[in-house]
Amino acid sequence: MNTTLEIIGYIRSDIKTRADAPKQGCEGGIEATVEIKEEYREALEGLETGAEILLFSWLHESDRSYQKVHPRGDESRPKRGVFSTRSPDRPNPIGLHPVTITAIDGCKIKVRPMEAIDGTPLVDIKNAQR
Amino acid sequence: MNTTLEIIGYIRSDIKTRADAPKQGCEGGIEATVEIKEEYREALEGLETGAEILLFSWLHESDRSYQKVHPRGDESRPKRGVFSTRSPDRPNPIGLHPVTITAIDGCKIKVRPMEAIDGTPLVDIKNAQR
Repeated sequence: MNTTLEIIGYIRSDIKTRADAPKQGCEGGIEATVEIKEEYREALEGLETGAEILLFSWLHESDRSYQKVHPRGDESRPKRGVFSTRSPDRPNPIGLHPVTITAIDGCKIKVRPMEAIDGTPLVDIKNAQR
Repeated sequence: MNTTLEIIGYIRSDIKTRADAPKQGCEGGIEATVEIKEEYREALEGLETGAEILLFSWLHESDRSYQKVHPRGDESRPKRGVFSTRSPDRPNPIGLHPVTITAIDGCKIKVRPMEAIDGTPLVDIKNAQR
């Protein structure tokens, strides 16, 4: 079974480091641009301004060896298993970002609120409505 | 950059084929068991009965070459880009399943409602609360 993710694009953001990133988009996320690779242009058809979507990123600066972490990086709180948290440090560092499209121009999509750092690879986009 | 997903466990379910699977868990999903590999036991600490979690699966029977699909597989509807849908057929077939833990025993976690087919690999678990 091939479980290797294809990178479909990248997040372009004014947040440049993990230290500067809010823990969640709803806590100070900003507008960011998603640049999708030209080869996936057809897959974008149907996305419109105002649509609520889920972005799936690959948190490339994460440490995949962690099984336990201090919740929200707060060392005063006891460590917990990563699967009971939202820590980016986990065996498969998939980021989940619920955002709204604020503008779309070809393969460039503006979204908000986004907390991921500049250069984060994107691996999937889904309609947020089930 | 290594973007290969580690399989952390498997979904065990009475749904045996894609044809039998509801489109979404909220549309007829059933109780299913998630069997996590022993090597990830520590990462489960903190998960409890009643907790709302997000399961991320790898939809291994998907066709990764599709860029456009009929929404919900309904051929009377015009094709749309996969990124504006929830189709399992997409470049990176990550499944997202919001579920509640109904029981937990070591590395076996009962959850509902689950629509994925028996044998679907699991790649991540996150706390649903942000």
